[in-house]
Amino acid sequence: MTDCVFCDIVAGLSPAARVYEDDAVVAFLDIRPLARGHTLVVPRIHSSGLADLDAPSADAVFSAGRRIAGALRRSSIGADGVNLLVNDGRAAMQTVFHHHMHVVPRWNGDKLRFAAQLLTRRPHELDEVARVVREALAHGN
Amino acid sequence: MTDCVFCDIVAGLSPAARVYEDDAVVAFLDIRPLARGHTLVVPRIHSSGLADLDAPSADAVFSAGRRIAGALRRSSIGADGVNLLVNDGRAAMQTVFHHHMHVVPRWNGDKLRFAAQLLTRRPHELDEVARVVREALAHGN
Repeated sequence: MTDCVFCDIVAGLSPAARVYEDDAVVAFLDIRPLARGHTLVVPRIHSSGLADLDAPSADAVFSAGRRIAGALRRSSIGADGVNLLVNDGRAAMQTVFHHHMHVVPRWNGDKLRFAAQLLTRRPHELDEVARVVREALAHGN
Repeated sequence: MTDCVFCDIVAGLSPAARVYEDDAVVAFLDIRPLARGHTLVVPRIHSSGLADLDAPSADAVFSAGRRIAGALRRSSIGADGVNLLVNDGRAAMQTVFHHHMHVVPRWNGDKLRFAAQLLTRRPHELDEVARVVREALAHGN
């Protein structure tokens, strides 16, 4: 184990509900999701934030996040919209210092639920959700 | 003029404090900034959201946003952190239906101010801020 929880997931030392991976990134469900299907995309290479990450890895994170957003809409998750968010730096509310992008599915009229879950984040059925997103990725762009 | 405010800016039909442009994207200061230096990156090609935008344009938006985030930190804007945010779809709080990414500088301890400005967004001195960000982009990655 390392001292970085995301490096441990990338290395397979910690479990995670993976939805996507390629040479540059790994994507898995947030263990404390704001919504069903809330995914994190991380570069395989450790970097505390954007400033010290190589540009190809950084752009690979965004590109994977974009494709996952499409999968969250197309799959049975059935998102009506998606927020893609990078909090870069403690001042921007970054809490895990391995660069990552949040991909958060949204539904019409969920505003109050979304706000409430910011305060009361709980695990959902991660393995089943991960399977649904993986299948949509396999059949999309 | 078209019926899209961002197409009008891209075409030069509407004024904007531009900070960056290339073959695929144009970036300019949000006219109702959440913070000094709040920048929007838009693809030149019109698309209401991510789902109907070509992948190279979508990835060019992310890549430009990443570089602008670096400029907001390195320049005299002096951001301690940056939020990069795409609201894709009305359910995700998208309000202008030409795809765009928000790049919002943050400073240590600004949380209350940031939240307050969500409710009371006002124009800042856009031309001067745009000049500062352009200069940092010209001297970085």
